Amino acid sequence: MKIILDGMGGDNAPASVVEGAVLASKETDHQIFIIGQEELITEELKKYKYDKNKIGVIGASEVISNDDAPVRAVRSKKDSSIVKGLNMVKNGEGDIFISAGSTGALLAGGLFILGRIQGIDRPALATIYPIVGGIPSLLVDAGANADCKPNNLLEFGMMGNIYMEKVLGRKNPKVGLVNIGTEAAKGSTLTKAAYDLLEHSHMNFIGNVEAREVPKGVCDVIVTDGFTGNVLLKLTEGLAWNILQVIKKKFTDGVKAKFGAALLIDKIKGLKQEFDYSEYGGAPILGVKGPVVKMHGSSNANAVKNTILKGIPYVTENVVEIIQNSVLEIEEITLSENERF
Amino acid sequence: MKIILDGMGGDNAPASVVEGAVLASKETDHQIFIIGQEELITEELKKYKYDKNKIGVIGASEVISNDDAPVRAVRSKKDSSIVKGLNMVKNGEGDIFISAGSTGALLAGGLFILGRIQGIDRPALATIYPIVGGIPSLLVDAGANADCKPNNLLEFGMMGNIYMEKVLGRKNPKVGLVNIGTEAAKGSTLTKAAYDLLEHSHMNFIGNVEAREVPKGVCDVIVTDGFTGNVLLKLTEGLAWNILQVIKKKFTDGVKAKFGAALLIDKIKGLKQEFDYSEYGGAPILGVKGPVVKMHGSSNANAVKNTILKGIPYVTENVVEIIQNSVLEIEEITLSENERF
Repeated sequence: MKIILDGMGGDNAPASVVEGAVLASKETDHQIFIIGQEELITEELKKYKYDKNKIGVIGASEVISNDDAPVRAVRSKKDSSIVKGLNMVKNGEGDIFISAGSTGALLAGGLFILGRIQGIDRPALATIYPIVGGIPSLLVDAGANADCKPNNLLEFGMMGNIYMEKVLGRKNPKVGLVNIGTEAAKGSTLTKAAYDLLEHSHMNFIGNVEAREVPKGVCDVIVTDGFTGNVLLKLTEGLAWNILQVIKKKFTDGVKAKFGAALLIDKIKGLKQEFDYSEYGGAPILGVKGPVVKMHGSSNANAVKNTILKGIPYVTENVVEIIQNSVLEIEEITLSENERF
Repeated sequence: MKIILDGMGGDNAPASVVEGAVLASKETDHQIFIIGQEELITEELKKYKYDKNKIGVIGASEVISNDDAPVRAVRSKKDSSIVKGLNMVKNGEGDIFISAGSTGALLAGGLFILGRIQGIDRPALATIYPIVGGIPSLLVDAGANADCKPNNLLEFGMMGNIYMEKVLGRKNPKVGLVNIGTEAAKGSTLTKAAYDLLEHSHMNFIGNVEAREVPKGVCDVIVTDGFTGNVLLKLTEGLAWNILQVIKKKFTDGVKAKFGAALLIDKIKGLKQEFDYSEYGGAPILGVKGPVVKMHGSSNANAVKNTILKGIPYVTENVVEIIQNSVLEIEEITLSENERF
């Protein structure tokens, strides 16, 4: 298997990416190709001892940054690491593309270069959602589609369900729909219609889930439109950060508090780690014709390593093919829904 | 001024409501009328010393519970505390109605009994949003309208702005629109159009606000559709609860930790209080023809007292009238927006 790694994406590129590739290569026999500005990457690689049969470098002269307009960048920067890497997956020269670069460019590139899986209306970004004191959930869609139709939410559920089972290894995952009440009749026009579709799927659909319950880990796959998904994810980040800041401030206010905090230092560090979900791997783009994984822009070498290793089942478990095969069920549910009305 | 207080709403009714009324009556000269099952309320009142000129009881034999279908309940239970209380405000026998009862019934009652302020398309529920380590924001809409149009978001902003200035006393409040990016062109069809409307208002509109920034208190008035608002509010509750639970567990795990936690007990309690925003009063229903305030269902006597006292400016500052007068600006912005296209 050939893993194509974007050497130019993320805040710490190419240093962290290269180091992460070296670390990963020690734990897998698959080949890793780092794509990007050859000189920079080769220079970084020189710092490490590694198996030259397992890590290669592929030159790509251009770089797509977060400031570039995604669609325009993908159309114009043909020799960028993102465009070239996705083309390699398309042409069978690579099996998976992993990048910490611009989410927008990865989504646009996924659509234009790899294309949608036939029958999937809207590909989605799925991200790991941290559960403090528990195992993380998978949130679909995390922001790729701000406006959604009910059938999109069914697709998100089906794709997330497959990814959770095959890649994250959780059997018969609980699939929940984010809503503002638990009863079937509650919610917006969108969620009411989506509930009806999800209910007719073969999945372990547990119904509506209120936002209050999401951080408690009540469901494994959190289904929602991209607007709400993005709000959920970013609010969680912001609020957790804020609470931890206030704890820090309070716990260093006065001698007695400082002494108490010193005794609790391990526990406080452990609390921070609850939100470090880089060990669970990156965020897959689901619904395009090839495995693409987005890493956090601030990924360090360890996060890169984990994303590479955790991404392998996306290929070996044939997730793209399984999603392709699930399209029939999606179509059947949507069609019979139309007949019901 | 006559304050009408729902004696039957909330988990601890009528005990907490009655006690809260007694506490409030010691700090204000306005009259408080507790409405509900007379015998129960009178029985509770006997427990306290209070000024009989300042607290009265009004009989209402029926009770609307959270399990009742709101619209049906408001239509059928004519002698309930909610229906009777709202009718008193409508008929000028009361100046404000305060209740810890069913939010749905209060919204439905507000619409059917008091009616919408002419020119306001969708009344909204505004709630205090806690800012850990700072002063709270006001979130509009918190869940009254799951499906919104752009002009509704403009209304929410205008009404929230007025309430924040007049009742919560914050001058020239910063008004922000919850969105999934900060640039004007980002977001859903709804938020993009709403941005354009808000930008043309006279308010101190600071533009789009990402969910990550909301808990940091970047804006005083948080404008969003009722679906997203409800998600924001409930996720904040759920996540904060979850983090505090994990802290508790971690900090009592082992002798050393327990000793450290003992030294920090005041600070930990202080952290909990950051989320207790009952001192800021209840949640106004904005856009109906009379002041209505919803209290949290679990309000204790102190929360009831605060809601009563903090609710007074809703009447004395003529908030309903000011909202009525702002309708012209809303219409002008919406109309000229239509002309721009």
